[in-house]
Amino acid sequence: MTRWEADSRGRIERAALALYSERGFEQTTVVEIARRAGLTERTFFRHFADKREVLFGGAGTLQEFLVGAVAGAPESMAPLDAVAGALEAAAVLFQERRDYARQRRMVIAAHAGLQERELIKLAALTLALAEALRGRGVSEPAASLAAEAGIVVFRSAFERWLNESNQRDWPHLIRESLDELRAVTAGA
Amino acid sequence: MTRWEADSRGRIERAALALYSERGFEQTTVVEIARRAGLTERTFFRHFADKREVLFGGAGTLQEFLVGAVAGAPESMAPLDAVAGALEAAAVLFQERRDYARQRRMVIAAHAGLQERELIKLAALTLALAEALRGRGVSEPAASLAAEAGIVVFRSAFERWLNESNQRDWPHLIRESLDELRAVTAGA
Repeated sequence: MTRWEADSRGRIERAALALYSERGFEQTTVVEIARRAGLTERTFFRHFADKREVLFGGAGTLQEFLVGAVAGAPESMAPLDAVAGALEAAAVLFQERRDYARQRRMVIAAHAGLQERELIKLAALTLALAEALRGRGVSEPAASLAAEAGIVVFRSAFERWLNESNQRDWPHLIRESLDELRAVTAGA
Repeated sequence: MTRWEADSRGRIERAALALYSERGFEQTTVVEIARRAGLTERTFFRHFADKREVLFGGAGTLQEFLVGAVAGAPESMAPLDAVAGALEAAAVLFQERRDYARQRRMVIAAHAGLQERELIKLAALTLALAEALRGRGVSEPAASLAAEAGIVVFRSAFERWLNESNQRDWPHLIRESLDELRAVTAGA
Protein backbone atom coordinates (compact mmCIF):
# COMPACT_ATOMS: atom_id res chain seq x y z
CA MET A 1 0.00 0.00 0.00
CA THR A 2 1.42 3.42 -0.92
CA ARG A 3 1.51 6.20 1.60
CA TRP A 4 -1.25 8.01 -0.25
CA GLU A 5 -3.52 4.95 -0.07
CA ALA A 6 -2.84 4.45 3.63
CA ASP A 7 -3.82 8.05 4.13
CA SER A 8 -7.01 7.55 2.10
CA ARG A 9 -8.05 4.88 4.53
CA GLY A 10 -7.52 7.14 7.53
CA ARG A 11 -9.32 10.00 5.80
CA ILE A 12 -12.32 7.76 5.11
CA GLU A 13 -12.39 6.62 8.73
CA ARG A 14 -12.26 10.14 10.11
CA ALA A 15 -14.82 11.47 7.62
CA ALA A 16 -17.22 8.59 8.31
CA LEU A 17 -16.95 8.93 12.07
CA ALA A 18 -17.53 12.69 11.89
CA LEU A 19 -20.66 12.17 9.76
CA TYR A 20 -22.00 9.33 11.94
CA SER A 21 -21.58 11.57 14.98
CA GLU A 22 -23.19 14.59 13.35
CA ARG A 23 -26.20 12.98 11.68
CA GLY A 24 -26.31 9.35 12.76
CA PHE A 25 -25.09 6.13 11.19
CA GLU A 26 -28.29 5.29 9.30
CA GLN A 27 -28.57 8.78 7.81
CA THR A 28 -25.07 8.79 6.33
CA THR A 29 -24.31 7.49 2.82
CA VAL A 30 -21.07 6.27 1.26
CA VAL A 31 -21.31 9.13 -1.26
CA GLU A 32 -21.28 11.65 1.58
CA ILE A 33 -18.37 9.94 3.32
CA ALA A 34 -16.30 9.93 0.13
CA ARG A 35 -17.14 13.57 -0.55
CA ARG A 36 -16.21 14.63 3.00
CA ALA A 37 -12.93 12.71 2.69
CA GLY A 38 -12.23 14.36 -0.66
CA LEU A 39 -12.13 10.99 -2.42
CA THR A 40 -14.18 9.09 -4.97
CA GLU A 41 -16.72 6.40 -4.12
CA ARG A 42 -14.48 4.00 -6.00
CA THR A 43 -11.64 4.72 -3.59
CA PHE A 44 -14.01 4.14 -0.68
CA PHE A 45 -14.89 0.70 -1.97
CA ARG A 46 -11.25 -0.15 -2.53
CA HIS A 47 -10.81 0.13 1.24
CA PHE A 48 -14.15 -0.89 2.74
CA ALA A 49 -17.00 -3.20 1.73
CA ASP A 50 -19.66 -0.86 3.13
CA LYS A 51 -20.21 2.01 5.54
CA ARG A 52 -20.48 -0.32 8.52
CA GLU A 53 -17.07 -1.88 7.91
CA VAL A 54 -15.41 1.53 8.21
CA LEU A 55 -16.04 1.24 11.96
CA PHE A 56 -14.59 -2.27 12.16
CA GLY A 57 -11.53 -2.07 9.94
CA GLY A 58 -9.37 -1.92 13.06
CA ALA A 59 -10.70 -5.28 14.28
CA GLY A 60 -8.98 -7.16 11.46
CA THR A 61 -5.70 -5.35 12.06
CA LEU A 62 -5.91 -6.05 15.79
CA GLN A 63 -6.69 -9.73 15.26
CA GLU A 64 -3.81 -10.20 12.83
CA PHE A 65 -1.44 -8.43 15.22
CA LEU A 66 -2.52 -10.42 18.30
CA VAL A 67 -2.48 -13.78 16.56
CA GLY A 68 1.06 -13.07 15.29
CA ALA A 69 2.23 -11.94 18.71
CA VAL A 70 0.75 -15.01 20.45
CA ALA A 71 2.37 -17.31 17.89
CA GLY A 72 5.71 -15.59 18.39
CA ALA A 73 5.70 -15.53 22.20
CA PRO A 74 8.49 -17.47 23.98
CA GLU A 75 7.68 -21.16 24.11
CA SER A 76 7.87 -21.33 27.88
CA MET A 77 5.19 -18.69 28.34
CA ALA A 78 1.89 -19.77 29.94
CA PRO A 79 -1.14 -19.35 27.63
CA LEU A 80 -2.74 -16.36 29.33
CA ASP A 81 0.64 -14.66 29.68
CA ALA A 82 1.20 -15.08 25.94
CA VAL A 83 -2.18 -13.43 25.27
CA ALA A 84 -1.56 -10.65 27.78
CA GLY A 85 1.88 -10.01 26.30
CA ALA A 86 0.32 -9.71 22.86
CA LEU A 87 -2.29 -7.29 24.23
CA GLU A 88 0.42 -5.14 25.82
CA ALA A 89 2.35 -5.06 22.57
CA ALA A 90 -0.80 -3.92 20.75
CA ALA A 91 -0.21 -0.53 22.34
CA VAL A 92 1.25 0.54 18.98
CA LEU A 93 -2.21 0.16 17.44
CA PHE A 94 -3.88 2.34 20.05
CA GLN A 95 -1.46 5.22 20.23
CA GLU A 96 -3.01 8.51 19.16
CA ARG A 97 -6.35 6.78 18.71
CA ARG A 98 -8.08 7.53 21.99
CA ASP A 99 -10.25 10.40 20.72
CA TYR A 100 -11.19 8.37 17.66
CA ALA A 101 -12.04 5.36 19.84
CA ARG A 102 -14.19 7.45 22.18
CA GLN A 103 -16.16 8.95 19.34
CA ARG A 104 -16.51 5.52 17.72
CA ARG A 105 -17.90 4.07 20.92
CA MET A 106 -20.59 6.75 21.07
CA VAL A 107 -21.65 5.99 17.49
CA ILE A 108 -21.81 2.27 18.25
CA ALA A 109 -23.69 2.77 21.52
CA ALA A 110 -26.43 4.58 19.58
CA HIS A 111 -27.12 1.68 17.19
CA ALA A 112 -28.10 -1.89 18.17
CA GLY A 113 -26.89 -3.37 14.87
CA LEU A 114 -23.42 -1.90 15.41
CA GLN A 115 -23.30 -3.25 18.96
CA GLU A 116 -24.10 -6.70 17.61
CA ARG A 117 -21.34 -6.32 15.03
CA GLU A 118 -18.90 -5.38 17.79
CA LEU A 119 -19.82 -8.54 19.72
CA ILE A 120 -19.37 -10.66 16.59
CA LYS A 121 -15.91 -9.22 16.00
CA LEU A 122 -14.90 -9.93 19.60
CA ALA A 123 -16.22 -13.50 19.32
CA ALA A 124 -14.18 -13.98 16.13
CA LEU A 125 -11.10 -12.56 17.86
CA THR A 126 -11.60 -14.99 20.76
CA LEU A 127 -11.75 -17.95 18.37
CA ALA A 128 -8.63 -16.74 16.53
CA LEU A 129 -6.68 -16.40 19.79
CA ALA A 130 -7.73 -19.90 20.91
CA GLU A 131 -6.57 -21.22 17.54
CA ALA A 132 -3.22 -19.42 17.92
CA LEU A 133 -2.79 -20.98 21.36
CA ARG A 134 -3.59 -24.45 20.05
CA GLY A 135 -0.90 -23.77 17.44
CA ARG A 136 1.50 -23.38 20.37
CA GLY A 137 0.51 -26.82 21.62
CA VAL A 138 -1.98 -25.65 24.25
CA SER A 139 -4.76 -28.21 24.58
CA GLU A 140 -8.47 -27.66 25.06
CA PRO A 141 -10.17 -26.39 27.15
CA ALA A 142 -7.13 -24.37 28.33
CA ALA A 143 -6.70 -22.69 24.93
CA SER A 144 -10.30 -21.44 24.75
CA LEU A 145 -10.38 -20.44 28.41
CA ALA A 146 -7.12 -18.48 28.12
CA ALA A 147 -8.41 -16.77 24.96
CA GLU A 148 -11.66 -15.85 26.68
CA ALA A 149 -9.85 -14.66 29.80
CA GLY A 150 -7.62 -12.56 27.54
CA ILE A 151 -10.65 -10.94 25.94
CA VAL A 152 -12.06 -10.16 29.39
CA VAL A 153 -8.75 -8.44 30.22
CA PHE A 154 -8.79 -6.60 26.90
CA ARG A 155 -12.32 -5.29 27.34
CA SER A 156 -11.69 -4.19 30.90
CA ALA A 157 -8.49 -2.37 29.94
CA PHE A 158 -10.08 -0.84 26.85
CA GLU A 159 -13.01 0.49 28.88
CA ARG A 160 -10.62 2.09 31.33
CA TRP A 161 -8.44 3.47 28.58
CA LEU A 162 -11.48 5.22 27.09
CA ASN A 163 -12.90 6.48 30.36
CA GLU A 164 -9.94 7.59 32.34
CA SER A 165 -8.71 11.10 32.22
CA ASN A 166 -5.30 10.17 33.54
CA GLN A 167 -2.56 9.30 31.15
CA ARG A 168 -1.61 5.79 32.21
CA ASP A 169 -0.45 3.91 29.20
CA TRP A 170 -2.04 0.94 27.51
CA PRO A 171 0.42 -1.79 28.67
CA HIS A 172 -0.06 -0.65 32.26
CA LEU A 173 -3.85 -0.94 31.93
CA ILE A 174 -3.52 -4.45 30.47
CA ARG A 175 -1.33 -5.60 33.35
CA GLU A 176 -3.64 -3.98 35.88
CA SER A 177 -6.72 -5.68 34.39
CA LEU A 178 -4.92 -9.01 34.29
CA ASP A 179 -3.95 -8.67 37.96
CA GLU A 180 -7.55 -7.84 38.84
CA LEU A 181 -8.90 -10.81 36.92
CA ARG A 182 -6.38 -13.01 38.71
CA ALA A 183 -7.49 -11.66 42.07
CA VAL A 184 -11.15 -12.24 41.20
CA THR A 185 -10.63 -15.79 39.96
CA ALA A 186 -8.38 -16.63 42.90
CA GLY A 187 -11.34 -15.71 45.09
CA ALA A 188 -9.68 -12.75 46.77
CA MET B 1 -49.94 -19.10 34.54
CA THR B 2 -52.19 -22.17 34.39
CA ARG B 3 -50.74 -25.56 33.71
CA TRP B 4 -52.33 -25.52 30.27
CA GLU B 5 -50.62 -22.21 29.42
CA ALA B 6 -47.25 -23.45 30.63
CA ASP B 7 -47.68 -26.44 28.38
CA SER B 8 -48.59 -24.17 25.43
CA ARG B 9 -45.25 -22.47 25.78
CA GLY B 10 -43.38 -25.75 25.72
CA ARG B 11 -45.43 -26.97 22.78
CA ILE B 12 -44.63 -23.81 20.82
CA GLU B 13 -40.92 -24.20 21.59
CA ARG B 14 -40.82 -27.82 20.47
CA ALA B 15 -42.92 -27.17 17.34
CA ALA B 16 -40.77 -24.17 16.35
CA LEU B 17 -37.51 -26.01 16.86
CA ALA B 18 -38.72 -28.99 14.86
CA LEU B 19 -39.76 -26.72 11.96
CA TYR B 20 -36.54 -24.68 12.07
CA SER B 21 -34.58 -27.92 11.91
CA GLU B 22 -36.66 -29.38 9.08
CA ARG B 23 -36.94 -26.39 6.77
CA GLY B 24 -34.76 -23.62 8.19
CA PHE B 25 -35.47 -20.63 10.41
CA GLU B 26 -36.16 -18.14 7.60
CA GLN B 27 -38.56 -20.48 5.84
CA THR B 28 -40.77 -21.05 8.88
CA THR B 29 -43.74 -18.82 9.72
CA VAL B 30 -45.57 -18.20 12.98
CA VAL B 31 -48.74 -19.61 11.40
CA GLU B 32 -46.95 -22.89 10.73
CA ILE B 33 -45.51 -23.04 14.24
CA ALA B 34 -48.93 -22.47 15.80
CA ARG B 35 -50.50 -25.10 13.55
CA ARG B 36 -47.81 -27.66 14.37
CA ALA B 37 -48.28 -26.95 18.08
CA GLY B 38 -52.06 -27.31 17.73
CA LEU B 39 -52.59 -23.75 18.95
CA THR B 40 -53.83 -20.46 17.53
CA GLU B 41 -51.59 -17.64 16.35
CA ARG B 42 -53.07 -15.55 19.13
CA THR B 43 -51.79 -18.03 21.69
CA PHE B 44 -48.38 -17.90 20.07
CA PHE B 45 -48.22 -14.14 20.47
CA ARG B 46 -49.37 -14.37 24.07
CA HIS B 47 -46.10 -16.21 24.77
CA PHE B 48 -43.59 -14.82 22.28
CA ALA B 49 -43.10 -11.52 20.45
CA ASP B 50 -41.91 -13.21 17.25
CA LYS B 51 -40.48 -16.46 15.89
CA ARG B 52 -36.95 -15.50 16.85
CA GLU B 53 -37.84 -15.01 20.50
CA VAL B 54 -39.04 -18.61 20.76
CA LEU B 55 -35.37 -19.61 20.69
CA PHE B 56 -34.41 -17.13 23.41
CA GLY B 57 -37.25 -17.42 25.89
CA GLY B 58 -34.95 -19.45 28.14
CA ALA B 59 -32.43 -16.59 28.34
CA GLY B 60 -34.81 -14.43 30.36
CA THR B 61 -35.63 -17.28 32.74
CA LEU B 62 -31.94 -18.05 33.20
CA GLN B 63 -31.06 -14.41 33.84
CA GLU B 64 -33.81 -14.01 36.42
CA PHE B 65 -32.76 -17.21 38.15
CA LEU B 66 -29.04 -16.35 38.25
CA VAL B 67 -29.58 -12.78 39.42
CA GLY B 68 -31.79 -14.05 42.24
CA ALA B 69 -29.30 -16.73 43.24
CA VAL B 70 -26.37 -14.28 43.24
CA ALA B 71 -28.37 -11.82 45.35
CA GLY B 72 -29.25 -14.59 47.81
CA ALA B 73 -25.77 -16.09 48.15
CA PRO B 74 -24.18 -16.03 51.63
CA GLU B 75 -22.68 -12.64 52.36
CA SER B 76 -19.21 -14.02 52.98
CA MET B 77 -19.01 -15.59 49.53
CA ALA B 78 -16.41 -14.22 47.10
CA PRO B 79 -17.94 -12.70 43.93
CA LEU B 80 -16.96 -15.43 41.47
CA ASP B 81 -18.01 -18.14 43.93
CA ALA B 82 -21.42 -16.49 44.24
CA VAL B 83 -21.77 -16.56 40.44
CA ALA B 84 -20.50 -20.13 40.18
CA GLY B 85 -22.88 -21.24 42.94
CA ALA B 86 -25.76 -19.64 41.04
CA LEU B 87 -24.67 -21.42 37.85
CA GLU B 88 -24.55 -24.76 39.67
CA ALA B 89 -28.02 -24.19 41.08
CA ALA B 90 -29.30 -23.46 37.55
CA ALA B 91 -29.07 -27.21 36.94
CA VAL B 92 -32.84 -27.30 37.54
CA LEU B 93 -33.30 -25.26 34.34
CA PHE B 94 -31.20 -27.62 32.24
CA GLN B 95 -32.55 -30.97 33.36
CA GLU B 96 -34.20 -32.91 30.57
CA ARG B 97 -33.28 -30.17 28.12
CA ARG B 98 -30.11 -31.51 26.57
CA ASP B 99 -31.67 -32.79 23.34
CA TYR B 100 -33.61 -29.56 22.95
CA ALA B 101 -30.43 -27.53 23.57
CA ARG B 102 -28.44 -29.52 21.04
CA GLN B 103 -31.05 -29.09 18.35
CA ARG B 104 -31.35 -25.40 19.20
CA ARG B 105 -27.61 -24.94 18.81
CA MET B 106 -27.68 -26.43 15.32
CA VAL B 107 -30.47 -24.06 14.27
CA ILE B 108 -28.55 -21.07 15.66
CA ALA B 109 -25.26 -22.17 14.08
CA ALA B 110 -26.97 -22.10 10.67
CA HIS B 111 -28.07 -18.44 10.93
CA ALA B 112 -25.81 -15.43 11.49
CA GLY B 113 -28.63 -13.26 12.84
CA LEU B 114 -29.44 -15.86 15.50
CA GLN B 115 -25.79 -16.10 16.49
CA GLU B 116 -25.72 -12.34 16.97
CA ARG B 117 -28.87 -12.57 19.07
CA GLU B 118 -27.22 -15.23 21.24
CA LEU B 119 -24.22 -12.95 21.82
CA ILE B 120 -26.51 -10.05 22.72
CA LYS B 121 -28.34 -12.18 25.28
CA LEU B 122 -25.06 -13.28 26.85
CA ALA B 123 -23.85 -9.67 26.99
CA ALA B 124 -27.11 -8.68 28.72
CA LEU B 125 -26.70 -11.56 31.17
CA THR B 126 -23.15 -10.43 31.94
CA LEU B 127 -24.35 -6.90 32.71
CA ALA B 128 -27.17 -8.23 34.91
CA LEU B 129 -24.75 -10.42 36.91
CA ALA B 130 -22.36 -7.49 37.40
CA GLU B 131 -25.30 -5.42 38.65
CA ALA B 132 -26.32 -8.21 41.06
CA LEU B 133 -22.76 -8.34 42.41
CA ARG B 134 -22.67 -4.58 42.89
CA GLY B 135 -25.92 -5.03 44.81
CA ARG B 136 -23.92 -7.26 47.17
CA GLY B 137 -21.44 -4.46 47.72
CA VAL B 138 -18.81 -5.68 45.25
CA SER B 139 -17.02 -2.70 43.74
CA GLU B 140 -15.87 -2.18 40.17
CA PRO B 141 -13.95 -3.52 38.35
CA ALA B 142 -14.25 -6.70 40.46
CA ALA B 143 -18.01 -6.97 39.86
CA SER B 144 -17.73 -6.83 36.06
CA LEU B 145 -14.67 -9.07 35.97
CA ALA B 146 -16.34 -11.71 38.17
CA ALA B 147 -19.48 -11.54 36.01
CA GLU B 148 -17.43 -11.97 32.82
CA ALA B 149 -15.39 -14.79 34.36
CA GLY B 150 -18.68 -16.44 35.37
CA ILE B 151 -19.94 -16.24 31.78
CA VAL B 152 -16.68 -17.79 30.55
CA VAL B 153 -17.26 -20.66 32.99
CA PHE B 154 -20.90 -20.96 31.92
CA ARG B 155 -20.07 -21.12 28.21
CA SER B 156 -17.31 -23.65 28.72
CA ALA B 157 -19.53 -25.90 30.87
CA PHE B 158 -22.48 -25.51 28.48
CA GLU B 159 -20.35 -26.50 25.51
CA ARG B 160 -19.19 -29.60 27.32
CA TRP B 161 -22.67 -30.44 28.51
CA LEU B 162 -23.88 -30.38 24.90
CA ASN B 163 -20.95 -32.29 23.43
CA GLU B 164 -20.18 -34.98 25.91
CA SER B 165 -21.71 -38.36 25.64
CA ASN B 166 -21.03 -39.17 29.26
CA GLN B 167 -23.59 -38.40 31.88
CA ARG B 168 -21.73 -36.07 34.22
CA ASP B 169 -24.16 -33.64 35.70
CA TRP B 170 -24.37 -29.90 35.23
CA PRO B 171 -23.00 -28.77 38.66
CA HIS B 172 -19.98 -31.00 38.14
CA LEU B 173 -19.28 -29.39 34.76
CA ILE B 174 -19.55 -25.90 36.25
CA ARG B 175 -17.07 -26.74 39.01
CA GLU B 176 -14.74 -28.36 36.54
CA SER B 177 -14.81 -25.33 34.21
CA LEU B 178 -14.26 -23.00 37.15
CA ASP B 179 -11.25 -25.03 38.27
CA GLU B 180 -9.85 -24.93 34.75
CA LEU B 181 -10.34 -21.17 34.46
CA ARG B 182 -8.58 -20.80 37.80
CA ALA B 183 -5.66 -22.91 36.60
CA VAL B 184 -5.41 -20.87 33.38
CA THR B 185 -5.52 -17.48 35.12
CA ALA B 186 -3.10 -18.63 37.81
CA GLY B 187 -0.67 -19.30 34.94
CA ALA B 188 -0.50 -23.06 35.45
